[in-house]
Amino acid sequence: MEIGIIGLGLIGGSLAKAISQNTDNTVYGYDISDQVVKKAVLVNAIEQPLTDKLLPQCDIVIVALYPQAAVDYVKNHADLFKKGSIVTDCCGIKTLVCDELIPLSEEKGFLFIGGHPMAGLEHSGFTYAKKSLFNNASMVFTTTKGPIESMSKLKDLFTSIGFTNIEITTPEEHDRKIAFTSQLAHVVSNAYIKSPTAREHSGFSAGSYKDLTRVAKLNEDMWTELFLENPENLTNEIDTLIDNLKAYSDAIKSKDSETLKALLKDGREKKAVIDGEIF
Amino acid sequence: MEIGIIGLGLIGGSLAKAISQNTDNTVYGYDISDQVVKKAVLVNAIEQPLTDKLLPQCDIVIVALYPQAAVDYVKNHADLFKKGSIVTDCCGIKTLVCDELIPLSEEKGFLFIGGHPMAGLEHSGFTYAKKSLFNNASMVFTTTKGPIESMSKLKDLFTSIGFTNIEITTPEEHDRKIAFTSQLAHVVSNAYIKSPTAREHSGFSAGSYKDLTRVAKLNEDMWTELFLENPENLTNEIDTLIDNLKAYSDAIKSKDSETLKALLKDGREKKAVIDGEIF
Repeated sequence: MEIGIIGLGLIGGSLAKAISQNTDNTVYGYDISDQVVKKAVLVNAIEQPLTDKLLPQCDIVIVALYPQAAVDYVKNHADLFKKGSIVTDCCGIKTLVCDELIPLSEEKGFLFIGGHPMAGLEHSGFTYAKKSLFNNASMVFTTTKGPIESMSKLKDLFTSIGFTNIEITTPEEHDRKIAFTSQLAHVVSNAYIKSPTAREHSGFSAGSYKDLTRVAKLNEDMWTELFLENPENLTNEIDTLIDNLKAYSDAIKSKDSETLKALLKDGREKKAVIDGEIF
Repeated sequence: MEIGIIGLGLIGGSLAKAISQNTDNTVYGYDISDQVVKKAVLVNAIEQPLTDKLLPQCDIVIVALYPQAAVDYVKNHADLFKKGSIVTDCCGIKTLVCDELIPLSEEKGFLFIGGHPMAGLEHSGFTYAKKSLFNNASMVFTTTKGPIESMSKLKDLFTSIGFTNIEITTPEEHDRKIAFTSQLAHVVSNAYIKSPTAREHSGFSAGSYKDLTRVAKLNEDMWTELFLENPENLTNEIDTLIDNLKAYSDAIKSKDSETLKALLKDGREKKAVIDGEIF
């Protein structure tokens, strides 16, 4: 197949490298930076720059831009996609993207299926892109009615570059779950580091601190956009966590060891159930 | 030297294995479970069971029990410690332990120095003990006036079993910092998993979720005791985090992208400063 990748940042660049090196598909790539496109050709991440002339040949187009930019790109190129081809994206929120692009794709004769590779790093850009980024990761596709043959084609492509789990869900379910597993984690990590104690803790940090603060170093432009496109789900999660944290604080302030122990036991058991250790 | 270890759980058991296998000191061990003591002899973690007859021969005694049990053990054996010997512990809080035991040790002619190995696992017991547990970890000693020769003896022992950083501080400073680096992390992780979304997220979790919830699986008996012996520091940290989280929630609810971006940027920069990447 001929595959076009729009945006050669961490995710798009890693997809380009992984597809070019692990499959026999031909990869074309576009990036706003000419330098990045040239570098991608140089390291064989793409065969050649993706032009408006090549775009109509692509069987699959993967748009790896921020959400609003991804929507704009697909809208602006809607007439150029090959009839029957698949267009997917990599955005961390899916309702906005799918609400705009699924109807458009039906009108224009291509198939839009939302995509979200559950992988990343606390770095951005082609410089950090690597073909192993998706090893053992989950790939989530969101669609309301994509035909099974096309889903199957996408599944084959993504499992051939390292993904070991493919999820298919609705955009709404995706956004609700991702608010918990990814967005809340980034908010908490970013907030955790703001304690005044943080600057003096050197030498006192074990693994738990390191884990809690790893993703504090996020890209604020991208995450601001992602958070504001999923406001209800995310604030529900933040507010739920705040309520839960208050319960511990209250129990400790009132020196209520029974309540505190019950809170901790409940958390331990919930984690064990989720990890499949107790049922 | 002859070294006694009281309590052969994850920490005491790992210390016994590491000292026996990495140094030429003789290790004696005691545990409330006879089976554990026998197993420790069998796997050469200790040379023989520590008895009240051997205790007065020990140059260093390491008490690896929960805080109140550690205090009780040292009080009950105060007359048996060798004059001039060093007694230390492994508790995650230090003010309570040092307030009780430093004056006692001065009265009885031994030297009590608080200790906290910054290492652990989300498992308990001798079964999980391993000599590599302390590799590249920090060891914190808390004392108000221990002589430098004794600190030096402890430093040599602990660096010979894998610790690469030795901190010396007061019990109060230790408890303030540990509330942030370790206790808060365990509270947040344990609270995070309580979202109703947690049970349905399978397939949607990337590294950030895994990191945030790793230590949710804690030992509630031990942590209840640790939290209640450090209530002011820990509730300060929890309440600070709640306030910080509210700011994100408010910015998202009011769709205030400038404030949200500024909050995220501030967190990213604080993390980068702490990690030594920007100054």
